[in-house]
Amino acid sequence: MEKKIKVAIVGYGNIGQYALDAVEAAPDMECVGIVRRSVEGLQKSAEGYFVMPNGMKTVTNINELGKVDVAILATPSRKVEENAKKYLAMGINTVDSFDIHTQIVDLRRSLDAVAKANGAVSVISAGWDPGSDSIVRTLMQSLAPKGITYTNFGPGRSMGHSVAVRAIEGVRDALSMTIPVGTGIHRRMVYVELEEGVDFKKIEAAIKSDPYFVNDETHVQQVDCVDDLNDVGHGVNLVRKGVSGKTHNQILEFDMKINNPALTAQVLVNVARASVRQQPGVYTMVEIPVIDMLPGDREELIRHLV
Amino acid sequence: MEKKIKVAIVGYGNIGQYALDAVEAAPDMECVGIVRRSVEGLQKSAEGYFVMPNGMKTVTNINELGKVDVAILATPSRKVEENAKKYLAMGINTVDSFDIHTQIVDLRRSLDAVAKANGAVSVISAGWDPGSDSIVRTLMQSLAPKGITYTNFGPGRSMGHSVAVRAIEGVRDALSMTIPVGTGIHRRMVYVELEEGVDFKKIEAAIKSDPYFVNDETHVQQVDCVDDLNDVGHGVNLVRKGVSGKTHNQILEFDMKINNPALTAQVLVNVARASVRQQPGVYTMVEIPVIDMLPGDREELIRHLV
Repeated sequence: MEKKIKVAIVGYGNIGQYALDAVEAAPDMECVGIVRRSVEGLQKSAEGYFVMPNGMKTVTNINELGKVDVAILATPSRKVEENAKKYLAMGINTVDSFDIHTQIVDLRRSLDAVAKANGAVSVISAGWDPGSDSIVRTLMQSLAPKGITYTNFGPGRSMGHSVAVRAIEGVRDALSMTIPVGTGIHRRMVYVELEEGVDFKKIEAAIKSDPYFVNDETHVQQVDCVDDLNDVGHGVNLVRKGVSGKTHNQILEFDMKINNPALTAQVLVNVARASVRQQPGVYTMVEIPVIDMLPGDREELIRHLV
Repeated sequence: MEKKIKVAIVGYGNIGQYALDAVEAAPDMECVGIVRRSVEGLQKSAEGYFVMPNGMKTVTNINELGKVDVAILATPSRKVEENAKKYLAMGINTVDSFDIHTQIVDLRRSLDAVAKANGAVSVISAGWDPGSDSIVRTLMQSLAPKGITYTNFGPGRSMGHSVAVRAIEGVRDALSMTIPVGTGIHRRMVYVELEEGVDFKKIEAAIKSDPYFVNDETHVQQVDCVDDLNDVGHGVNLVRKGVSGKTHNQILEFDMKINNPALTAQVLVNVARASVRQQPGVYTMVEIPVIDMLPGDREELIRHLV
């Protein structure tokens, strides 16, 4: 049997926890530990290291984990560049789900030199969008080179929009749901829990004039408890109508209804596997053969999937 | 501007003609000629070579076309191995849409040595199934590693089934339509045009007991003119429900309604482009990064598609 790929998970929020699930479910990987900013409040194991309640070894410095092949960065997008550079400089592959679409090319350029200089691989922006959707968009564009692709998100919560609402004074908690209305246009359904004595009408006006919402159809509702609405389900519908060669009206569609963090974490684990099969450098998912994301014998995979 | 990729199209049936469309629509390619078994009946150009009615140079030996980067094999699957080996031995890349699923691994092995020995690339089984569907199936499997994928074909005609019916004595022409009934199960709607005095009931019984049909729900109808039913539209629905990490009920679906030969030809042209970007050897589509199928600057593509 081949040696298992040694994975460390950096960050143990929502995505980190689901990433551990996905590593544990993978036949060819093992999680050698979790890297966190602090181990405060954690128990010590009999062997003398800190452990999570699930028994997983937890450290503040990745060097304490011994050999690590890949670091899964389950940290916020704005921390990716700094963390990736640190681990790549140690010769450790990194994977992340950096999701600021407009900055992906910059991140790719920024990490390339350090990856190559240290013989390491970094797979960036590996979630579902950017990520698996990017593969589908690229495939669709290739199948019908002329035409229009629409990406319709939801129904599901938007982190960025929810955070923007929470930043408004008088808002105790908020949830912004993204509702697809077709052709890449989205409705925003915003649910707010307000501080005592706050005027709902003022909050509603503030939300509707916020840059995050000003261009979209936005509905605001007051609720007693935003947490009661919490559901990590999400979805996407990618649709393209276009031209193959000189033949019009080719119709392509991809649809997904998923637990969002579970899917993101699975993608991170898939590209962690793929990373050990690439030459040093930085990759987005469209630059990696899809077969490299799967465990198992290549000919067997081709026999069953091609 | 970069030099255009020089493409020859081998075979000028349905797929070959659509492949010429797709090459002509590609900004980075030029068709340097068509290779056919015979140039009988063709006109000569002012320059003294044979031309198709559309003016395209036509030869029986690819050497007459000068430098060729990629040969698009628009020939039947059973001719692929022989043709590919011939062109690969000349150092010319080949692409094909070999569609006998059970023999893909054997073809891949068979062509590998000759491709590598001659510094050439062969992309095999590049159509929509096997082909683009293979990419989607592999991606879906990666997103939800445990679960079931169903491939539902149609509605559209099945070449193999139609040919099987035409081989029955007394059948003048036949069309077998594949109708998806879900979970990878298909109904066969067979339309037959019979020779004079042939008993329809006997033909119907022969069809239903044929190995191609014996396991499927099959309906046979007699028609006056099979050609009146001719439509190259086809479709596929790929659906997977599975588990990401330890999270169940992840639902993924891909749907396509297309002109069949136009899509197959577009895929052949896409992998012809990708072939010049790979190391020598043999590839199925799942072994090639999807971005390699598109023309244009890589960073620009990432900016728009990732």
